[in-house]
Amino acid sequence: MNTFGYNIRLTTFGESHGPALGGILDGFPPMVKIDFEKVKEDMEKRAPGRQAFTSPRKEPDEVEFLSGLSADGVTLGTPIGFIIRNKDQRSGDYAGYAGRFRPNHADYTYYSKYGINEFAGGGRASARATVSWVAAGALCRQWLATKGVTVSARFIETNSVEEAASNGDSTGGIVEGVINGLPVGVGEPLFGKLHSRLAAAMMSINAAKAFEYGDGVASAYSFGSNVQDLMIPDNNAAGGYRFLTNHSGGIQGGISNGMPVNFKVYFKPTPTLMREMDAYDTEGKHVIIPPKGRHDPCVAKRAPAIVEAMALLTVADLMRYM
Amino acid sequence: MNTFGYNIRLTTFGESHGPALGGILDGFPPMVKIDFEKVKEDMEKRAPGRQAFTSPRKEPDEVEFLSGLSADGVTLGTPIGFIIRNKDQRSGDYAGYAGRFRPNHADYTYYSKYGINEFAGGGRASARATVSWVAAGALCRQWLATKGVTVSARFIETNSVEEAASNGDSTGGIVEGVINGLPVGVGEPLFGKLHSRLAAAMMSINAAKAFEYGDGVASAYSFGSNVQDLMIPDNNAAGGYRFLTNHSGGIQGGISNGMPVNFKVYFKPTPTLMREMDAYDTEGKHVIIPPKGRHDPCVAKRAPAIVEAMALLTVADLMRYM
Amino acid sequence: MNTFGYNIRLTTFGESHGPALGGILDGFPPMVKIDFEKVKEDMEKRAPGRQAFTSPRKEPDEVEFLSGLSADGVTLGTPIGFIIRNKDQRSGDYAGYAGRFRPNHADYTYYSKYGINEFAGGGRASARATVSWVAAGALCRQWLATKGVTVSARFIETNSVEEAASNGDSTGGIVEGVINGLPVGVGEPLFGKLHSRLAAAMMSINAAKAFEYGDGVASAYSFGSNVQDLMIPDNNAAGGYRFLTNHSGGIQGGISNGMPVNFKVYFKPTPTLMREMDAYDTEGKHVIIPPKGRHDPCVAKRAPAIVEAMALLTVADLMRYM
Amino acid sequence: MNTFGYNIRLTTFGESHGPALGGILDGFPPMVKIDFEKVKEDMEKRAPGRQAFTSPRKEPDEVEFLSGLSADGVTLGTPIGFIIRNKDQRSGDYAGYAGRFRPNHADYTYYSKYGINEFAGGGRASARATVSWVAAGALCRQWLATKGVTVSARFIETNSVEEAASNGDSTGGIVEGVINGLPVGVGEPLFGKLHSRLAAAMMSINAAKAFEYGDGVASAYSFGSNVQDLMIPDNNAAGGYRFLTNHSGGIQGGISNGMPVNFKVYFKPTPTLMREMDAYDTEGKHVIIPPKGRHDPCVAKRAPAIVEAMALLTVADLMRYM
Repeated sequence: MNTFGYNIRLTTFGESHGPALGGILDGFPPMVKIDFEKVKEDMEKRAPGRQAFTSPRKEPDEVEFLSGLSADGVTLGTPIGFIIRNKDQRSGDYAGYAGRFRPNHADYTYYSKYGINEFAGGGRASARATVSWVAAGALCRQWLATKGVTVSARFIETNSVEEAASNGDSTGGIVEGVINGLPVGVGEPLFGKLHSRLAAAMMSINAAKAFEYGDGVASAYSFGSNVQDLMIPDNNAAGGYRFLTNHSGGIQGGISNGMPVNFKVYFKPTPTLMREMDAYDTEGKHVIIPPKGRHDPCVAKRAPAIVEAMALLTVADLMRYM
Repeated sequence: MNTFGYNIRLTTFGESHGPALGGILDGFPPMVKIDFEKVKEDMEKRAPGRQAFTSPRKEPDEVEFLSGLSADGVTLGTPIGFIIRNKDQRSGDYAGYAGRFRPNHADYTYYSKYGINEFAGGGRASARATVSWVAAGALCRQWLATKGVTVSARFIETNSVEEAASNGDSTGGIVEGVINGLPVGVGEPLFGKLHSRLAAAMMSINAAKAFEYGDGVASAYSFGSNVQDLMIPDNNAAGGYRFLTNHSGGIQGGISNGMPVNFKVYFKPTPTLMREMDAYDTEGKHVIIPPKGRHDPCVAKRAPAIVEAMALLTVADLMRYM
Repeated sequence: MNTFGYNIRLTTFGESHGPALGGILDGFPPMVKIDFEKVKEDMEKRAPGRQAFTSPRKEPDEVEFLSGLSADGVTLGTPIGFIIRNKDQRSGDYAGYAGRFRPNHADYTYYSKYGINEFAGGGRASARATVSWVAAGALCRQWLATKGVTVSARFIETNSVEEAASNGDSTGGIVEGVINGLPVGVGEPLFGKLHSRLAAAMMSINAAKAFEYGDGVASAYSFGSNVQDLMIPDNNAAGGYRFLTNHSGGIQGGISNGMPVNFKVYFKPTPTLMREMDAYDTEGKHVIIPPKGRHDPCVAKRAPAIVEAMALLTVADLMRYM
Repeated sequence: MNTFGYNIRLTTFGESHGPALGGILDGFPPMVKIDFEKVKEDMEKRAPGRQAFTSPRKEPDEVEFLSGLSADGVTLGTPIGFIIRNKDQRSGDYAGYAGRFRPNHADYTYYSKYGINEFAGGGRASARATVSWVAAGALCRQWLATKGVTVSARFIETNSVEEAASNGDSTGGIVEGVINGLPVGVGEPLFGKLHSRLAAAMMSINAAKAFEYGDGVASAYSFGSNVQDLMIPDNNAAGGYRFLTNHSGGIQGGISNGMPVNFKVYFKPTPTLMREMDAYDTEGKHVIIPPKGRHDPCVAKRAPAIVEAMALLTVADLMRYM
């Protein structure tokens, strides 16, 4: 369950405090010329420390490509192996957490499931794992660009992040994504619907709690007569028709209809606070966890790069043999 | 993409107006005694015509099991094949739709993708296909019951359905699901998280537009200090700990923590109205679609049985080898 | 593990003495006009009782198609569900076998693995399950014919079958298959090599003990200088080149090279003899199994239809998105 | 198609002349203590240059593990990422091959399929890719040893390799494998039969042309009365029964019966000769390929380590959830 996708498949590995993370992107089309500067830009968008109020960890996150590319950077159609070294492991920061179940973290569930006490910094559950998703998404972005498909995402603030940070608190937030330029026909019935695949992809991101597309939650409160997307013939439109409105969010019956696909992902607040936290350890003893370690008061702020990556992987996968 | 699951896999077939629908449930545990009366009850919960204001179509939907069961109804561990005959096809009702793209239906996207004009009544895109999901979910329910796991779902009204129906209109609605009795440890990192799998499952249901679990959308507006689920040791609890609150919705890091798993699915209004509708046909000609055919003014009302089925399939799949 | 293939996937169900067997063929191309008479011919080729010295069981094996086809027999691109009723179950013939481990059958291994004593007539292990493979293969044959690809197989006698039968004995045999008209490029490195996929397919057939392609076993005894397949440019050849010899059996590096693909499958003798057989039962008691039930003295004789079906499924799967 | 297995899955990457090869082993059990010296021994068994008459290339092939292991070498249950650097690329040796289709190599089929002229030294088709299989197999060997299962393989000479080498020629050969200590019940009907999985695994190895298990090819020439494996109760045997003979090769109905599983893989001669070879280039021009580059006169000689690795991966995969 460390593999995402069917036609273009990303298999990942790596713990946040091991020597490296990485992945294998298999099924990627041959003959795509990769611009490594653009890969670097995508990696930087994800990097913590780039934005105020996100974690000060400043690793450069260089992607080393090990296969699948010719000497001049053209994809060969063979699996693309890549690694990202962990340069700034500072696991000392996490010393206070060893053997302790931090509230609202995966510490307790991982410990119960695997029986292994390796959760300093989150191990495999850490958001650090998304570094591989962004690297692979960056390649998909370049291939999709050749087909006129673009993906972008932006953070929507719900509470003042400065205020949360100054209180040692954290806050939730929203990321809105949009996919432009999709042809008609992307998505597979019955269990590969475009929005079902997107939902699964987005809910794989740490701290995501809800997903909606098009009118989303509001649809449930609507009358049918108010939300019909009427279509009219339009020779400039992807499939020969244009829709006058987009309540559907660009998807009908699980298949893209040529309109922009828009969706929102709702993120909970970072569970770690810069305050003392009540907790229990693996021996059942009550402990106070001190405020320590790296800290993003709002995980959603850093999420747009990851939302983009997962949407890119999803769309590339579905479009591979179209 | 007509297969759901990995360890217990449901593969489905059938069009709404063909001779039969059905499926193969592969990987189901051996030695489970099936109560066919209970399967029937689950099928009836889904049946239209059972509730006021849902479609008057009244097929009995008998499931014929063809394999995988001993003479006395005990599962053999071999694939369980089953079919449900379409007894009440009345495709005449759909005559007015032939070659016409009904608004907010999958007609246009299916036509563009497959180039086949077989969409009277929805064909493969019809909610009728869910009859196989419910049959398979009914078997999963019986196996999960032996492990103390139960799944239930209920409809939450947002607008008066009577009012919508009397106007020839339709309305959206909400279905809330809850999974009780889950042990700690259900869900697989990174791409098999319990809520990611549930999201994909729920977004496979026709007309679903949003999914949330636990605090869901509200999480995005919360401060971290207000939504911590504190844990305390409790020998009666699944994993030795109980949580004082359940903002997490029973899932942390994608893995169940022993608390109830609750989630909501938001459904859009039925796209077909009992009014004349503007549309275009496959020749690009403007047409008026008359009010005709079967009609559920609120698809969400019939959805609880389907939400339960998909949750049952998801949980059974994840628990198969625990 | 009841599913074969990736792009065109056959999922099967059914026990030899249950009400029906069948399958779902998912991913089959749309717009293929099916000739049902030809499907019937393929089913008849498999039927026992058609040849002298094969089992006298004479069920007609009618395939009932339940979905995936338009009214005039054109594939829709949706999953094709089909069933074959067991009309001639005569399980009384197997009464003497109940609870007894017949020599060289799967009785003991199935019983040990599943703990279920349902092996009269072989249950899921019976060669009867191949009826679904032949039905699905028949559809693949018709699609592949539109691309100029044909598959045929023939039985090669090793011992006189009449002699074996008159002694109440059984004998092994060989089936040779050939795939003609394949374009260059069928097969996927590294674990989807054409011959690896064929080997797995053929070794799925009951009683198969060995697989070879091209020079096969003889290759191991050859010098490299004697078995080079020299190529020469030829505008009439599939890929612009023709090979002067075909030691490679039409496959190089796991990928078809445009030459005929030929292979052999070696079958062991039918384990059931028309003699008394020493055996043990599930209680550990020694028993004598009397000569009874249907009997093919040479399973290989009936295997060509099955070898063809599995080759057709393999090739169709690999060519689906070429 | 660069992934092998279902429960324990190896996904691989790497070209013979790129910076590194490697893989991700996902699904491997947690809590297995790895002995890295033993991994090294397995890698050395594969290394060319270790035996007379195999290629003089002498890379050490160190495996660098990047994830999935605790600091003291215990598996965590998370994916195990590893890489092997190519230290001795000497692609100059292959200069004479650029753009030329070497006889009986994958050059022509890869070129036709992918349109990319990257086949110096074999690229992805090179036997060098098996280095990742051996590394992953080495981990499986250590887990299986804790269950009493061992795998070994040996080379069987068919022609004098010295003679072939002195003539600038090459020869085929045979590798025999045996799996000891298997419990009863390994293998999955219908398409996951133990011998079908082994056949696919072995036919994935470069130059393999035939696979047989148990009596294999000879079965086809046998009478049933001569090859019955009679069973007798034996409390010391895996499943409570022992077989007096093993014509079945330890497998009945695709499932292990507790006896040793033995099989043979037949390899063709190395296609490259140390002689001038007639060939064509990508422009259709006739060329003479000079004798150059590294050379194994008998690929089968080096194959036992690879045969063992593939058998280990196959068995570990099938036993993961037993």
